[in-house]
Amino acid sequence: MNIIIEDGIIVSEEIIHRGSVVIEDNRIIDVGPSEEIRRKYSASGYVKIDARDKIVSPGFINAHTHIAMTLLRGYADDLHLQEWLEKWIWPYEAKMTDRDIELGALLGSVESLLNGVTTVCSMYHYHKEHNEASASLQVGLRMVMGVAMFSWDVEGSIKNVEDALNRWHGREGLVKVSLSPHAPYTVSPELWVEAERIRREADERLGSKGSVVITTHILEDWREPEIVKNQFKVDIPSGSIYLYLDKLGVLSPSFTAAHSIHMNEVDYEVASRRGVKIVHNPVANLKLGMGVANVPKMHEYGMTVGLGTDGPASNNTLDLIETMKYASLLPKGLYRDPTLLNAKKVFEMATVDGAKTLGYGDLGLIKPGYLADIIIIDRKRVNLTPLYDVYSHTVYAMRASDVHTVIVNGDLVVEDRAVKGVDVLDLMRRVEKRAFEIREGLETSG
Amino acid sequence: MNIIIEDGIIVSEEIIHRGSVVIEDNRIIDVGPSEEIRRKYSASGYVKIDARDKIVSPGFINAHTHIAMTLLRGYADDLHLQEWLEKWIWPYEAKMTDRDIELGALLGSVESLLNGVTTVCSMYHYHKEHNEASASLQVGLRMVMGVAMFSWDVEGSIKNVEDALNRWHGREGLVKVSLSPHAPYTVSPELWVEAERIRREADERLGSKGSVVITTHILEDWREPEIVKNQFKVDIPSGSIYLYLDKLGVLSPSFTAAHSIHMNEVDYEVASRRGVKIVHNPVANLKLGMGVANVPKMHEYGMTVGLGTDGPASNNTLDLIETMKYASLLPKGLYRDPTLLNAKKVFEMATVDGAKTLGYGDLGLIKPGYLADIIIIDRKRVNLTPLYDVYSHTVYAMRASDVHTVIVNGDLVVEDRAVKGVDVLDLMRRVEKRAFEIREGLETSG
Repeated sequence: MNIIIEDGIIVSEEIIHRGSVVIEDNRIIDVGPSEEIRRKYSASGYVKIDARDKIVSPGFINAHTHIAMTLLRGYADDLHLQEWLEKWIWPYEAKMTDRDIELGALLGSVESLLNGVTTVCSMYHYHKEHNEASASLQVGLRMVMGVAMFSWDVEGSIKNVEDALNRWHGREGLVKVSLSPHAPYTVSPELWVEAERIRREADERLGSKGSVVITTHILEDWREPEIVKNQFKVDIPSGSIYLYLDKLGVLSPSFTAAHSIHMNEVDYEVASRRGVKIVHNPVANLKLGMGVANVPKMHEYGMTVGLGTDGPASNNTLDLIETMKYASLLPKGLYRDPTLLNAKKVFEMATVDGAKTLGYGDLGLIKPGYLADIIIIDRKRVNLTPLYDVYSHTVYAMRASDVHTVIVNGDLVVEDRAVKGVDVLDLMRRVEKRAFEIREGLETSG
Repeated sequence: MNIIIEDGIIVSEEIIHRGSVVIEDNRIIDVGPSEEIRRKYSASGYVKIDARDKIVSPGFINAHTHIAMTLLRGYADDLHLQEWLEKWIWPYEAKMTDRDIELGALLGSVESLLNGVTTVCSMYHYHKEHNEASASLQVGLRMVMGVAMFSWDVEGSIKNVEDALNRWHGREGLVKVSLSPHAPYTVSPELWVEAERIRREADERLGSKGSVVITTHILEDWREPEIVKNQFKVDIPSGSIYLYLDKLGVLSPSFTAAHSIHMNEVDYEVASRRGVKIVHNPVANLKLGMGVANVPKMHEYGMTVGLGTDGPASNNTLDLIETMKYASLLPKGLYRDPTLLNAKKVFEMATVDGAKTLGYGDLGLIKPGYLADIIIIDRKRVNLTPLYDVYSHTVYAMRASDVHTVIVNGDLVVEDRAVKGVDVLDLMRRVEKRAFEIREGLETSG
């Protein structure tokens, strides 16, 4: 679609106070002061969107979640991790079919768009037809589908990844497949090596130069080095999981790790030297009692850090605006330094830095040549009044409900908070019905 | 007004899944399963509110803020405390007139109601006619107006408190005046003693048995004992600010301290023994780099802890729903124990415990005899689907924008997110105009 977004406050590499953005097909082709854009482009051939009294921003990038887990939102909280997983989450997930995953992911996709999130990276059990990508395509959300790999099913994991790459990678210009070896404690050294081999080959075959990435969990739990050592009878040199992985040859700028809360000095050194990227999930990390990743230190080491919500069973939202505020506030409070992670830097983490963690070099900025993933925020809100500073409001005062319009890949997918092509009331009814059926099945069988 | 709220999920002392609440005048007179209430009360004489597909909850209590500071929301962020105060906040505040305070407080009152907050305790510089109470009465918000007292103006402070008690205390059943000696480093020992004397006399005179309270700031900054010692040439025994105040005879169950982040063992012992109550402000405490109060420890000591947003210049919202989630998540993450401050306990902090910190024994529960301050939340929301547990959703998944209807003191003040009697667009225009005038005045004069 060809669109001109007119007369908004544009959050580009700099703020343009009365600016316009020109979109052709799925790309941004121009951005500048409205007068200039008006002179350059004739009115015909473009759908006009009036953005007066609105903020025009890159869409947010939720770089780590398990989006189908909306079905389990609020199912079990305030529990120790192992009890939560073993008694509650895993038994429930064991009852979920491929249709359930698609249903949960559809609710999560709708929620994401309404929150101003235009790209989601989600890791889950892969199914061929009904999965996170099939759900996201129904509403036009950009999806990086992480295909989970476990060493208890090496053959199945590899088959899944290859099937997903053939079947889903590149679909409608919206879907990308990532390899998701689950974590060091569930993936054997051999499977890590195999995963990186498949990634490199796929990347070459698809000519995408680093855009096929590995997305995994590293050091969410402080006990991980010990657990991995016992699980696979391996040496963890210097107690460093990153050094262990580096010796396997799997670290690269296309390796993106969620969490990395409990890094030691060797971990920082190795991970940063290899160009590893991190996805910080402050809300879920707190909620599960895991701790707080040291993002200022990652930044000191020059690492790229994006933001994620983690799954809606451990957050319990898919709200990256909320996550931005946690990301900014936690280091200020914990290191007693309010200058850390200022609003502009956190905004970058939620947009362009997040895009980089998923292997996109042309996403997360309002800039000619970039993918047209844009949100339009209503600034005439009580909570956004007065408006002195756009970055400050976006991180500290904005609410998901202030998002008005959403464009993904050049398509208008949300207008005035209505998601196109979905009967949301019916969707909520279906989700609730199915969620309760699964729970009741568990109660009966348990 | 006589109202029956029908067929909602009632968050009373227990959850009633299809319940009704009967309100006569400004009190709740009955609550129970809908069938039972329908049998007991004839249809006539009550306004009916249909709460099907809705959650009916006590209104939230924002027990510490500086509500007029909406004018400064986002004016200055990410700065060290002293620079923030001295270069930005204080010069701006010096330009604010009584009309500005009323205007900022009116915006904040509207915002509070839309966030499901039905009582606000706000500390600020007192003015006789135009102040936080005059603003809150325009929209029917319950207001505890804390009259700031400083030892640089002992006489003025005392006059202000006495004038406020005479002029505002009890107004329309909605306003209460509290004494707000600002903090130990701005209030001399003599003024503390005087404040507590006035409080006791007022309490007796007004027959309110502990309902006239002191609201102040204690131990927001870890350097406070040292600063107080130097400021007033006093001894701080055992490095304990609470012991110092106790020796002045000012601690009691009617003494409510915001923050108290940096308490030592003696502080916990003395404050809990005297029945001191705490207001926890996790968002602002992080944002200003002050740290995190140890609420689990306060609870171990049997202390009552409410929640506050602190001022919108250091938060930057008046959103107690957001604050609930921070209050629950921070101790889980910092002490690596996800069972701490579960959703139900944090919900109590935001409602009935908050009411107690402000000297109300009949507020914060849906229970016969309690004040009719009730919010009705739309549960047919994507982010609240599926609904397994009401407390979990309220704390972890709900958004301010899910609040649909608000009743304060038996009056319907918000219906379908519209605040009665206020032209919100015009109010936002006036706030922004005046906020920018003040800023420009500063730029010119500076």
